[in-house]
Amino acid sequence: MDPTHTTTRDIVFGDCDPAGIVYYPNIYAWIDGTFHHYLLQFGGHQVVCEAVGSVGFGLFETRARYERALRIGDRLSIEMRIVEWARKTVTVAYRGVVDGHVAFEGTEIRGFFEMRDGRMRAGEMTPLKTFLEREAAS
Amino acid sequence: MDPTHTTTRDIVFGDCDPAGIVYYPNIYAWIDGTFHHYLLQFGGHQVVCEAVGSVGFGLFETRARYERALRIGDRLSIEMRIVEWARKTVTVAYRGVVDGHVAFEGTEIRGFFEMRDGRMRAGEMTPLKTFLEREAAS
Amino acid sequence: MDPTHTTTRDIVFGDCDPAGIVYYPNIYAWIDGTFHHYLLQFGGHQVVCEAVGSVGFGLFETRARYERALRIGDRLSIEMRIVEWARKTVTVAYRGVVDGHVAFEGTEIRGFFEMRDGRMRAGEMTPLKTFLEREAAS
Amino acid sequence: MDPTHTTTRDIVFGDCDPAGIVYYPNIYAWIDGTFHHYLLQFGGHQVVCEAVGSVGFGLFETRARYERALRIGDRLSIEMRIVEWARKTVTVAYRGVVDGHVAFEGTEIRGFFEMRDGRMRAGEMTPLKTFLEREAAS
Repeated sequence: MDPTHTTTRDIVFGDCDPAGIVYYPNIYAWIDGTFHHYLLQFGGHQVVCEAVGSVGFGLFETRARYERALRIGDRLSIEMRIVEWARKTVTVAYRGVVDGHVAFEGTEIRGFFEMRDGRMRAGEMTPLKTFLEREAAS
Repeated sequence: MDPTHTTTRDIVFGDCDPAGIVYYPNIYAWIDGTFHHYLLQFGGHQVVCEAVGSVGFGLFETRARYERALRIGDRLSIEMRIVEWARKTVTVAYRGVVDGHVAFEGTEIRGFFEMRDGRMRAGEMTPLKTFLEREAAS
Repeated sequence: MDPTHTTTRDIVFGDCDPAGIVYYPNIYAWIDGTFHHYLLQFGGHQVVCEAVGSVGFGLFETRARYERALRIGDRLSIEMRIVEWARKTVTVAYRGVVDGHVAFEGTEIRGFFEMRDGRMRAGEMTPLKTFLEREAAS
Repeated sequence: MDPTHTTTRDIVFGDCDPAGIVYYPNIYAWIDGTFHHYLLQFGGHQVVCEAVGSVGFGLFETRARYERALRIGDRLSIEMRIVEWARKTVTVAYRGVVDGHVAFEGTEIRGFFEMRDGRMRAGEMTPLKTFLEREAAS
């Protein structure tokens, strides 16, 4: 894929479990972190939320498939790509790559929440999509 | 569902993100922890592995769907149930419940690995299933 | 010591590192979590902050000494005790105990912050001490 | 100080707590990670342990003092320096720096364990010191 954004990290001892391979909840921390690292170029989560009148991103669903174990010393690239804008969700795909081999691939389905009639509700995605495209072009 | 095992925890400040709701990678740590807590009654991961000639459990795939935000002070019950034994995988379903409401549900597809011809390979599930059933009955 | 509050947890696989013992940053997560669990009886961090006109607790300093390795299956009790109220700090001591043996002991020095002249500053501890004592007595 | 090794990371949303500042156990994960990142140039924890006949590093004590809150978007440099070799411990000092300002400083006192008479015991530091100096020079 042609990634929207990529982060890189070296796997260290503390990332791993007693089997010596990466503890899988860390993989979700890293894909979530890659998404938020992508937002930093637009000012970060808070600035993006304010620009589109949202109270925050939230997750509807996440998943990951593990293809190769990650071990201490591996240099991991995490590539993210926005793959679908639906009316009230955005789907973000991830791929973790070490030495040209896919270690995992994952997906997050995110919403953008707003307060309406005193309740948190999923908002329309159009303002966010427009904001990100305009900022990326500028 | 009729859970195989249940753990409980109170959500605290440090479990949450700047939006004040649980940081989702923690949910994976808690479902994984519930599975391993279930194994403790059989002696824990190491004893189970040795009993069936395995080098360790591994994950093929995980997923979760978030229905309600978890907040500070929520008392969360995490129910797990083994829902399918396939030839080389076991599927474990989870449900997070607060005050009778489902906060999330998730799934892990796990394998049991063995060394064969110098490589890690997914082993047959029958020895594990037999071991757990025999131990649970004793 | 006579603990102000105690929490308990069973150590699981995912709490441990490749050496098979607890990854030490988790110990800090658990002592911080014990402090915030203690606050839950007063309504939690947010309610306490509002009651005393603070924007939040913050840490000045933390430390821990490790006496025995924690392993999978250990049932850990974390005892906390408020050991000193100074003008602008409160010192909280912790002890982790497994089967009557001390596994670690630690300390947090916490402040309570307020906004003054547009800056975050450490506030006086008296309102907090008074609030906690009054609530504990009621 | 003249650091032995430095790592860098950008603070993201998920690193922070509901007060919007970094959750302090993460700081310990990052300093521990910096030490293990330093070991990668020598082949990593496992290679170093084997070279000096040890079963693993362990911690005797850790501490940190927080000077400035870390927030989303901060680019944090973590500098480490070995400050003291004692007979059976090595003391490692850390400093977290953002834009030239110290955000925290911390210390780890580490031992190197070996099996002797069937028990884990703290070993002599000389073999490790000699190994690291020889490797660094080569």
